[in-house]
Amino acid sequence: MEFNGVILEDTYAEGFPVWVARVVITAVSKEWAYKAATEATGFATSTIGCPCEAGIEKFLSASETPDHRPGYSILICCGKKALKEQVLERIAECVLTAPTTAVFNGKAGSEEIIPVKLHFFGDGYESKVEVGGIQCWSIPIMGGDFIIEEEVGAVKGVAGGNFLIMGDSQMSALVAAEAAVTAIADVPGCITPFPGGVVSSGSKVGSKKYKFMGASTNEKFCPSIAAKVEDTEIPAGVKAVYEIVIDGVDVASVNAAMKAGVQAACRVPGVVKITAGNYGGNLGPFKFQLKDCI
Amino acid sequence: MEFNGVILEDTYAEGFPVWVARVVITAVSKEWAYKAATEATGFATSTIGCPCEAGIEKFLSASETPDHRPGYSILICCGKKALKEQVLERIAECVLTAPTTAVFNGKAGSEEIIPVKLHFFGDGYESKVEVGGIQCWSIPIMGGDFIIEEEVGAVKGVAGGNFLIMGDSQMSALVAAEAAVTAIADVPGCITPFPGGVVSSGSKVGSKKYKFMGASTNEKFCPSIAAKVEDTEIPAGVKAVYEIVIDGVDVASVNAAMKAGVQAACRVPGVVKITAGNYGGNLGPFKFQLKDCI
Amino acid sequence: MEFNGVILEDTYAEGFPVWVARVVITAVSKEWAYKAATEATGFATSTIGCPCEAGIEKFLSASETPDHRPGYSILICCGKKALKEQVLERIAECVLTAPTTAVFNGKAGSEEIIPVKLHFFGDGYESKVEVGGIQCWSIPIMGGDFIIEEEVGAVKGVAGGNFLIMGDSQMSALVAAEAAVTAIADVPGCITPFPGGVVSSGSKVGSKKYKFMGASTNEKFCPSIAAKVEDTEIPAGVKAVYEIVIDGVDVASVNAAMKAGVQAACRVPGVVKITAGNYGGNLGPFKFQLKDCI
Amino acid sequence: MEFNGVILEDTYAEGFPVWVARVVITAVSKEWAYKAATEATGFATSTIGCPCEAGIEKFLSASETPDHRPGYSILICCGKKALKEQVLERIAECVLTAPTTAVFNGKAGSEEIIPVKLHFFGDGYESKVEVGGIQCWSIPIMGGDFIIEEEVGAVKGVAGGNFLIMGDSQMSALVAAEAAVTAIADVPGCITPFPGGVVSSGSKVGSKKYKFMGASTNEKFCPSIAAKVEDTEIPAGVKAVYEIVIDGVDVASVNAAMKAGVQAACRVPGVVKITAGNYGGNLGPFKFQLKDCI
Repeated sequence: MEFNGVILEDTYAEGFPVWVARVVITAVSKEWAYKAATEATGFATSTIGCPCEAGIEKFLSASETPDHRPGYSILICCGKKALKEQVLERIAECVLTAPTTAVFNGKAGSEEIIPVKLHFFGDGYESKVEVGGIQCWSIPIMGGDFIIEEEVGAVKGVAGGNFLIMGDSQMSALVAAEAAVTAIADVPGCITPFPGGVVSSGSKVGSKKYKFMGASTNEKFCPSIAAKVEDTEIPAGVKAVYEIVIDGVDVASVNAAMKAGVQAACRVPGVVKITAGNYGGNLGPFKFQLKDCI
Repeated sequence: MEFNGVILEDTYAEGFPVWVARVVITAVSKEWAYKAATEATGFATSTIGCPCEAGIEKFLSASETPDHRPGYSILICCGKKALKEQVLERIAECVLTAPTTAVFNGKAGSEEIIPVKLHFFGDGYESKVEVGGIQCWSIPIMGGDFIIEEEVGAVKGVAGGNFLIMGDSQMSALVAAEAAVTAIADVPGCITPFPGGVVSSGSKVGSKKYKFMGASTNEKFCPSIAAKVEDTEIPAGVKAVYEIVIDGVDVASVNAAMKAGVQAACRVPGVVKITAGNYGGNLGPFKFQLKDCI
Repeated sequence: MEFNGVILEDTYAEGFPVWVARVVITAVSKEWAYKAATEATGFATSTIGCPCEAGIEKFLSASETPDHRPGYSILICCGKKALKEQVLERIAECVLTAPTTAVFNGKAGSEEIIPVKLHFFGDGYESKVEVGGIQCWSIPIMGGDFIIEEEVGAVKGVAGGNFLIMGDSQMSALVAAEAAVTAIADVPGCITPFPGGVVSSGSKVGSKKYKFMGASTNEKFCPSIAAKVEDTEIPAGVKAVYEIVIDGVDVASVNAAMKAGVQAACRVPGVVKITAGNYGGNLGPFKFQLKDCI
Repeated sequence: MEFNGVILEDTYAEGFPVWVARVVITAVSKEWAYKAATEATGFATSTIGCPCEAGIEKFLSASETPDHRPGYSILICCGKKALKEQVLERIAECVLTAPTTAVFNGKAGSEEIIPVKLHFFGDGYESKVEVGGIQCWSIPIMGGDFIIEEEVGAVKGVAGGNFLIMGDSQMSALVAAEAAVTAIADVPGCITPFPGGVVSSGSKVGSKKYKFMGASTNEKFCPSIAAKVEDTEIPAGVKAVYEIVIDGVDVASVNAAMKAGVQAACRVPGVVKITAGNYGGNLGPFKFQLKDCI
């Protein structure tokens, strides 16, 4: 199977359920909304070592937000129990503290409502206010008044969408990964939570040599030791592999992101092969076939 | 006391000790080093609700790094016990996973060495390697080989440097805060951990009305309710207050940052007054006098 | 007339015809397309002293371009005669020379086709090639092959859309101007050609004192000398005025941009009044009423 | 000759004299100084088709500028006669018009002083003012007062510093070119005037096939037609070539830039060879040997 001269392996990415909340952050300028959104979605690449997975979903122009100011929607993804705390803390520490911001329910879905009781911060000086037809709280702070819609919708979404880009040079694979992330950024409903959207260090469960390790490098996909690894998955001539990991609010979003990302990667010169990671269907119920990406 | 026509209150910021680790992150490009550094220092505005305080200290040109690639140094600040975990997790989840990065000891100080035993991730395929005269580990990963110096120096530094900018309009105060952050970015040894470097919502300990709250809005510094707050600190005509909070490796760094920041803020039209926050000397041993800033 | 508490003067912006060409620039990454587009639209604020007016119209995702790579569309605006040269030179010097770029006809309109005969640069090594169903030339260069569609459509559009933002502080007016530019960036078919989209120095035709000057400061709109200028247009309390100038492919685009920009500016705290510039209807046939902006 | 495993050809770049003016642009924020500097240095890649060559030299922190605000220095390079007009027009159209900016003499050298008589724009409302010990004009404009030092120093500098980066993939060469540009950005006294600092389309004088062309593609350095060009300079396995062109205020600056750039490029994986362009010493008096770069 080929697309634009690149080999696509006939395999699939294996996704699994994750809880996803969408928060809308607006500010007086695009830049300040971005700074708040970036801080709020930092240290959030993987639930293995971070408290959650999070990322910026997309820019919202003034015409798309309740207070008619520019904004960004972010997605916060993790287990149901942790989600409540993560949404609250990331808003309280990274958005409430950011100049001129306001927070609205991004309505990821109606399955669950996460309460974000920040109005108590107002110590009695807070008041109810309607903004764009929405009931909000207005909390007096140093910078002015912080507006917040205190209920944020969460939905059982999909984690673990992924594909791997193999390049004839490290830079071919890297720029292709960047192109994939750029393309996925235009797909609503999903994020690529790793730094710059790209994973450089894939892992396997456990370790053959160090029994105390819960995870270790996935040697089969490491080009620099391909000659030493009997069951290497690195084709001849491949110098680097980068993975794109996708979380989304539903299967359709992850599907669309996989398609946009794979095609974008295949348009960068020097990409040799695309494959995807799965656990033989044992981990999750969602299969994203690479053949559906072209 | 005045500087450039702006009133400086004769008061001081009260700093207290914090443990600080400096990590150097390099990459094939300035952009990728920045992306990794941003992810690694996210969700880290205040130890009240975040696991640590962290930020980018400065850009390092290729001539300043061990592997002669562009990089950024970051500071991670928190209690001694939490620091070890934060340094390890933020490197493991946000830098190791980022394309083309390497990690070196930024040598915040020699008081303590934090071990970052990431080489076990290599599952036996790792090897020792010398880079720029430094003993490192080379860990095979999908993107190539991840180079890491596994010992990161930490030092007992200073948290809580701060000053408050009062403006005749919200935007005067905001742009002045931005100018202060830009100026402080050029001062080595310190960071401004809040979103975009600025604090919009100052807090007081506890709450008068809601006893279950550990902190609540500092109503004395809230312009929108100045008329309702008897002991308000808001001068007539002030529409907004933004705070700059500074953490540093030592007193001298925070002093230099206070000076650079205060002066920069005072050069923005519409800034009316600068003051600083303290707890009467009960919280910390370090006093940063505003009069020393001019 | 008021919007969000801001006074709108009952006046209009006076637009006049200008020739507009739209060029689509794609590249291997969003960043490289942006760098080429920025270089190609530089030194192009006003036809008074620059060879043309130009700017980035909008980002195009991979799904919107002929070669399925990310890109930007730019508008180049000036007199009909100069347009041909400006389109050719700006493509030849600023896009052909930029890594991985391709150029396509942005189809501003069908009134005129500007030939861009760059294939001769190939010195006989060039060849015809079809990209996304479009006949293009492929020109061998150092970086690979440069793809160009050699016909660029131009249309008789509209220049001189404008409005002026008056603020209670310089920073209120400045941030409002930025917000207006951000909002207009989402409106297709138009650009704001000045630096960062904002004009700081309005001019009047000629000079009262220096007869050799073709233009000089419009003293009626200068806040710092309001007390000295008898017929000043500066209301009490206004500290700064910034103007947004808009060029577009047609009246509808400029209308939409005026509306989006005025409303966005009015949402920034500290904006006091919005007005617009005209010459009593003597300069151009297009009137953009501020009352139609709300 | 090798550096970091990359072949350096034993050749040299041939530089020639050019007039260079340095202008310092400050603003209320780093961002606005950057926007003005970017506009003022646009459409300025090569004097072959642009009115001049120009670029941002470096960021200046508040402590380095006369008005203690953040800024950028730019270099404008061309023939002596055109330089006066280019400096004047680019300041008048791209900096005077940009919000909050001021202009100071960057003192490229004392050989020549370019007068920038912008104070006439004030129409008699202008006044002399001292800023940071420098005699300036203060010109009332809509945004406030525009401060300008009306004499800008120019010096006979050096154009045409260059080197060519050959990669085993297009992306290897591209990222190496970016790395070179990043490294050169830290070298004072020089610029890389092409888009993003990189040249994708090298040219030769004249054309073999089209006699009316003054310049055409340098087929010897075009990888995609290497098999058809008898005297190709493309080594086996090279997929792309990018050139870095450097202008500077003196030989030492260009030397330092060549060294920093070549070394940075050689640290990117996949770079095969570095060479440089010259005309056998017939064009210019300055020789920059690649062997001096390591």
